[in-house]
Amino acid sequence: MSSVLFDRLTEQLQRLPGIGRKTAMRLAFNIVDSRELARDLSEALQQVWQNVGECSICRNITEKDVCDICSNSSRLDSICIVHNPADMRAIEDAGLYRGKYFVLHGFLAPLDGIGPDELGIDKLRKMIDRFEVDEIILALDSTADGEATSSYIARILEKSRVSVTRLARGLPPGASIEFADSLTLSQAFQGRQKV
Amino acid sequence: MSSVLFDRLTEQLQRLPGIGRKTAMRLAFNIVDSRELARDLSEALQQVWQNVGECSICRNITEKDVCDICSNSSRLDSICIVHNPADMRAIEDAGLYRGKYFVLHGFLAPLDGIGPDELGIDKLRKMIDRFEVDEIILALDSTADGEATSSYIARILEKSRVSVTRLARGLPPGASIEFADSLTLSQAFQGRQKV
Repeated sequence: MSSVLFDRLTEQLQRLPGIGRKTAMRLAFNIVDSRELARDLSEALQQVWQNVGECSICRNITEKDVCDICSNSSRLDSICIVHNPADMRAIEDAGLYRGKYFVLHGFLAPLDGIGPDELGIDKLRKMIDRFEVDEIILALDSTADGEATSSYIARILEKSRVSVTRLARGLPPGASIEFADSLTLSQAFQGRQKV
Repeated sequence: MSSVLFDRLTEQLQRLPGIGRKTAMRLAFNIVDSRELARDLSEALQQVWQNVGECSICRNITEKDVCDICSNSSRLDSICIVHNPADMRAIEDAGLYRGKYFVLHGFLAPLDGIGPDELGIDKLRKMIDRFEVDEIILALDSTADGEATSSYIARILEKSRVSVTRLARGLPPGASIEFADSLTLSQAFQGRQKV
């Protein structure tokens, strides 16, 4: 088995997250064995590459200029700030939030050249004005990068009239105190609520 | 997040082996976030779909009419029969076999409509004549389907002048007797060799 095109496909598949050399080869062998799958997948990718872009308002991924959520007037005028479209999908699937979103497509990382421009902070300001938003919800990972980005956005919106909140931190449902790490416990204590 | 093209890509990715809905979505989000990856992968797939076919002699996958192994005159005139190109690659990578191959692209499964025609038995006969082969090595999985296919091929070649062998069965290297199943032990006993 020696085919330049096969090897090239394997290389490209390895660029996908969580796909190593062995898995890429297994996928490639399957694709090569079914030319119909190769064609369909190639076409689906081409469609995405040529037509899917960012919503001009909220940076959500969409085929349109303005995404369905931004153009849905029944959505509340709050903005939930998320890291990427996958996080947005998780929140949408939970079905608990009925406002709008803003997608950062990254976390602040000045050393890697990811600053306010890359996160679209200007677009965020424009969106706040456009929809006369009254609440910004920071729904970013509770990791170091996520926290730093949350703090940064909270600081730059400090002087605006919008109220900025972030998701609660504490014990996840089903967690046992015995096995919770000290940071989780510390946040759960700090955020304790009246019963 | 609602994009028809995104959903279509997710569906296509789910056709790959071992890729469920969650993984397909994770891959699709990554692809959508990097248009360059979508383009490169689409092109690699298109190249495979349009150019990669089967070797006209041995049914190995190749961009040419006759694959590199069939056209390599230093290869010995024996034929190792394999299930698919992945198995062939595994044997090639082991570097122990210097003959030619024949790829079945399946196991015999009359109920699923996979008979001698689908396995290319006619091509196999032609290949045996063409190269004046003296040995056929059956290197198929030691599963029920693999064994049935091995037996079938052995039977139809019974009357030809080629000698038909199959890979040894027994304990794999590193196996402990204590944990070997009874079928493995039975095959290891049957195939015992003088030391």
